[in-house]
Amino acid sequence: MNVHDKRPPTPVSVTTGPVGASRKIYSSPRGHDDVRAPVREIALDPSASEAPLRVYDPSGPYTCGEFVPDLSAGLPAARPWLATRDGLEVYGGRAIKPEDNGFVSADHLVSPCPAARPIYRASGSAPVTQLEFARAGIVTKEMVYVAHRENLCRDRAFENGVARIAQAESFGASLPAFVTPEFVRDEIARGRAIIPANVNHPELEPVIIGRNFLVKVNANIGNSAVTSSVEEEVEKMVWAIRWGADTVMDLSTGRNIHNTREWIIRNAPVPIGTVPIYQALEKVGGDATKLDWNVFKDTLIEQAEQGVDYFTIHAGVRLAHVPLTAGRVTGVVSRGGSIMARWCLSRHRESFLYERFDEICDIMRRYDVSFSLGDGLRPGSIADANDAAQFAELETLGELTKVAWDKGCQVMIEGPGHVPMHKIKVNMEKQLRECGEAPFYTLGPLVTDIAPGYDHITSGIGAAMIGWFGTAMLCYVTPKEHLGLPDRDDVKTGVITYRIAAHAADLAKGHPAAQERDDAMSRARFDFRWRDQFDIGLDPDTARRYHDETLPKEAHKVAHFCSMCGPKFCSMQITRDLREEAAAIAEREKGLAEKSAEFLEKGAQIYVKG
Amino acid sequence: MNVHDKRPPTPVSVTTGPVGASRKIYSSPRGHDDVRAPVREIALDPSASEAPLRVYDPSGPYTCGEFVPDLSAGLPAARPWLATRDGLEVYGGRAIKPEDNGFVSADHLVSPCPAARPIYRASGSAPVTQLEFARAGIVTKEMVYVAHRENLCRDRAFENGVARIAQAESFGASLPAFVTPEFVRDEIARGRAIIPANVNHPELEPVIIGRNFLVKVNANIGNSAVTSSVEEEVEKMVWAIRWGADTVMDLSTGRNIHNTREWIIRNAPVPIGTVPIYQALEKVGGDATKLDWNVFKDTLIEQAEQGVDYFTIHAGVRLAHVPLTAGRVTGVVSRGGSIMARWCLSRHRESFLYERFDEICDIMRRYDVSFSLGDGLRPGSIADANDAAQFAELETLGELTKVAWDKGCQVMIEGPGHVPMHKIKVNMEKQLRECGEAPFYTLGPLVTDIAPGYDHITSGIGAAMIGWFGTAMLCYVTPKEHLGLPDRDDVKTGVITYRIAAHAADLAKGHPAAQERDDAMSRARFDFRWRDQFDIGLDPDTARRYHDETLPKEAHKVAHFCSMCGPKFCSMQITRDLREEAAAIAEREKGLAEKSAEFLEKGAQIYVKG
Repeated sequence: MNVHDKRPPTPVSVTTGPVGASRKIYSSPRGHDDVRAPVREIALDPSASEAPLRVYDPSGPYTCGEFVPDLSAGLPAARPWLATRDGLEVYGGRAIKPEDNGFVSADHLVSPCPAARPIYRASGSAPVTQLEFARAGIVTKEMVYVAHRENLCRDRAFENGVARIAQAESFGASLPAFVTPEFVRDEIARGRAIIPANVNHPELEPVIIGRNFLVKVNANIGNSAVTSSVEEEVEKMVWAIRWGADTVMDLSTGRNIHNTREWIIRNAPVPIGTVPIYQALEKVGGDATKLDWNVFKDTLIEQAEQGVDYFTIHAGVRLAHVPLTAGRVTGVVSRGGSIMARWCLSRHRESFLYERFDEICDIMRRYDVSFSLGDGLRPGSIADANDAAQFAELETLGELTKVAWDKGCQVMIEGPGHVPMHKIKVNMEKQLRECGEAPFYTLGPLVTDIAPGYDHITSGIGAAMIGWFGTAMLCYVTPKEHLGLPDRDDVKTGVITYRIAAHAADLAKGHPAAQERDDAMSRARFDFRWRDQFDIGLDPDTARRYHDETLPKEAHKVAHFCSMCGPKFCSMQITRDLREEAAAIAEREKGLAEKSAEFLEKGAQIYVKG
Repeated sequence: MNVHDKRPPTPVSVTTGPVGASRKIYSSPRGHDDVRAPVREIALDPSASEAPLRVYDPSGPYTCGEFVPDLSAGLPAARPWLATRDGLEVYGGRAIKPEDNGFVSADHLVSPCPAARPIYRASGSAPVTQLEFARAGIVTKEMVYVAHRENLCRDRAFENGVARIAQAESFGASLPAFVTPEFVRDEIARGRAIIPANVNHPELEPVIIGRNFLVKVNANIGNSAVTSSVEEEVEKMVWAIRWGADTVMDLSTGRNIHNTREWIIRNAPVPIGTVPIYQALEKVGGDATKLDWNVFKDTLIEQAEQGVDYFTIHAGVRLAHVPLTAGRVTGVVSRGGSIMARWCLSRHRESFLYERFDEICDIMRRYDVSFSLGDGLRPGSIADANDAAQFAELETLGELTKVAWDKGCQVMIEGPGHVPMHKIKVNMEKQLRECGEAPFYTLGPLVTDIAPGYDHITSGIGAAMIGWFGTAMLCYVTPKEHLGLPDRDDVKTGVITYRIAAHAADLAKGHPAAQERDDAMSRARFDFRWRDQFDIGLDPDTARRYHDETLPKEAHKVAHFCSMCGPKFCSMQITRDLREEAAAIAEREKGLAEKSAEFLEKGAQIYVKG
């Protein structure tokens, strides 16, 4: 059978093309031609006499001008070296079962993604995870890749980089002026950073998540109640990374999730995360009390073979923690947390995720799936922030972190939730202490509960702060949080809000490259280079549209004023005039001073000459 | 001549009616029937068994169900006591001159507002400003008013209020569990708080601005290039206060500004601020070098007679400070600052605002116009934050604060601007130190420059933080900042973003009443009271609309799930079930324990009975 028989018509619905006036560059560090790290280069007005601005770019090939996606074929391999990596074996993989796609009937089945890949797993005890390699002193291609990428593909430190680190406040982080592969290796070996990179996800452009690197952003996507086309599901991922999501979590439930996930992963240049308990619950008909180790284990293997890069595992929700939530205003608000709490309570026994944690580690190690240890007991309201249940779970997550590390697995830790500003910092401090500096990955936190419809903002405030304090990745929140399913605009707004938070954190931590972009924007502002202002910004389309609303003409894009103050009141123009005046005055005074000196020297004769 | 001849047709364009399911209440503290402080009471679902929720409400009579505005008549006096206050004299006032309305031709003249008021000023040295009264140990009606208002018209402290203050972090603020008029008087006497309340603004519902009170929000409005109708200009103010602006600055320039301002003030229940140098500049044809003390003085008196409550005065931009901006990336970005810098530099002499500061104080005192000492040298970019120019000006503002206090004037201090997160706190600390704890009033600050189109968010992050650290009032920034003129939606988005920031700050400072609203929201969430969630929020209309997008039916407003997780995955519902199960288990176990005790007591016989 030819798999191409099932190939859908050429997809047209995913968004392609460059963001603003920029082009994508893939660049290789010296001696590593197979490592091709991406960067987005923003062209500036020639009048600026400035080099193009390079910015970090998680959007994958979709934003290359020349790229034409073929979803059926999947993305080309960004990690070709996997095919020859020692310690991996190819095997047949688990057979697909009806429950994998939610027992969907044949006429509603989403066709499998034809992009066939061999399935890999560790063949033995030789290093397979990035943590194992790092501990063994081996610098992997992934480490070389992320080092080059974090440096925005530069081969030297940024000007003022050291000074910026020194002048900022990083709360104990150790940002380097220049990221070397060896630094990356060391951070991973210490458990302070992870590269979520399943051996079955060759399409991945590796990304590092850790306190001493650029703060990352995750966007959640999920299938709609109405079965949407495969292109629509892939487009959700493509759209989120276009605006800056560094990783994407697929929180789909229901029918067709196996096949849809396959389409997404084969076309994803970013790490894909999932919450396997959601699919496991579907397999037992939605009844949490029927969950067991076998169905969960089978789901882990199923998703690991597909190439999921990190799993949220709520193994910190222990039986003894459940009563601690009894007095809460909003109880348990994590889906995974409430599923496990129900399971524990209904059987009155310890969580099987906790009891089988060793075995979970063994499975995840074989594929190098990273842990995202879930905070199933995170607070769902200001009233419940930092309570006994939340912190008891965090202590358990710290205990599990050490177990996973012993097993060779990479780990990050999920965090809250809803926390008022004065209770944020202790979350970060406690996480670092309890979890041995494993990367923190937080949802917000929302700093108030009173603004449904604006929770991207309530949470963006908390995200910027906790990112500054040391959180390595921020999970976005959209304006629809608490109210409904985000649409395309909501996803974009959520991602950009979180890029703001992450960048604000990078600036405050003193990341050496971060301020380059702010400074480029500020120079463009002072020079009235309007098009550059649009393009340097996070969202060139919206900036241009807003400018057009009051000053639509092309001529206005070079005008030395804007609509806020108008030509007469423009403070920037006044400042420019001022500088010219000041220079003229200085020149005149210099002239007078020279005249004065001449006078003193030669006496009055110079005025009576002739 | 009958002024009513010029009355425009009955206005219909300002927005009226309650916000969500709420009603406005005017309430008088015991013994002060003439003091009628407003509060908005949100009705909750009867199933909640909760008292209606009271929230602070700056929106004025416009949100009363029964109120029909008559812009020509102006609002009824909220401060009737002014008419009989000692120390004030009525006088004829300054004659209106052609330049007051920008030399507009008769056919384009906006007709004067017919709402005639007597013009008051201090008759001598008896106390006339709130500061003078406070120092003399006199509790004014305004002080009684704001105390009652800050307590949300309650007559006792909030439950848990003391505990909330103790558990929070206020960075040296001294929040009381219950605000008494005497506390207000003391704060004003110390210069730590102001009540901007021109004696010529009887329509004003007094509001207090100070670190130990609720954080306030200012919205800027201004006329459009295209001459808009008077109703449209008034509507901008009405719309901004509807969504939570506590004060409004009218930054209009050009023609008709005198008459338009009159319409706004006569219909404004909130303090109105202006930047008089803008109008003075218009009067000299827009050439900053032609400004002089006489035209400025005349403008101060003109606006003070109209009832402007606070003036931004850029007296801290001294000649010696101008060269400090030479190395900046974005120079001088304040309009007022650049006007004064140009004036100083072109004449190479000290600012007349600085040299004439005593006289400015004497004028402002007579009307109790509060100072908002402008930060003309605030940074316009991350690169320029906290530089020598900015801090030199702040030190001068501290010097001027003491002069103004000596003259009996109320003072607040304007602050930045663009500041990365790690440089925010020192701004607050330096301001408190230099300016003797006079209230700080900041614009943002924006924590990054890279997001034009989203600067309500970049600045909302900084605003929440600096509000927490001690800023008393936050000047909003809209999504159009740096790009264009805000429209109606932008103003609403800006105000709500800043209400979020202010509330987040109140929570973190431990304001005793703040968390009441968060907790009410969280209980509504846990109870699936959807309509209550909409109404308790800052923007009921948007919240409801977002919910409708995925679950439009009325039945969904009482559904025990939402569209994010669906009925099967609802963590809140699972938690509720859990509680029931846990209670059943506890009951069963209690039963078993009793059985067990019985067994021990009676031996096996109970099982062999019969």
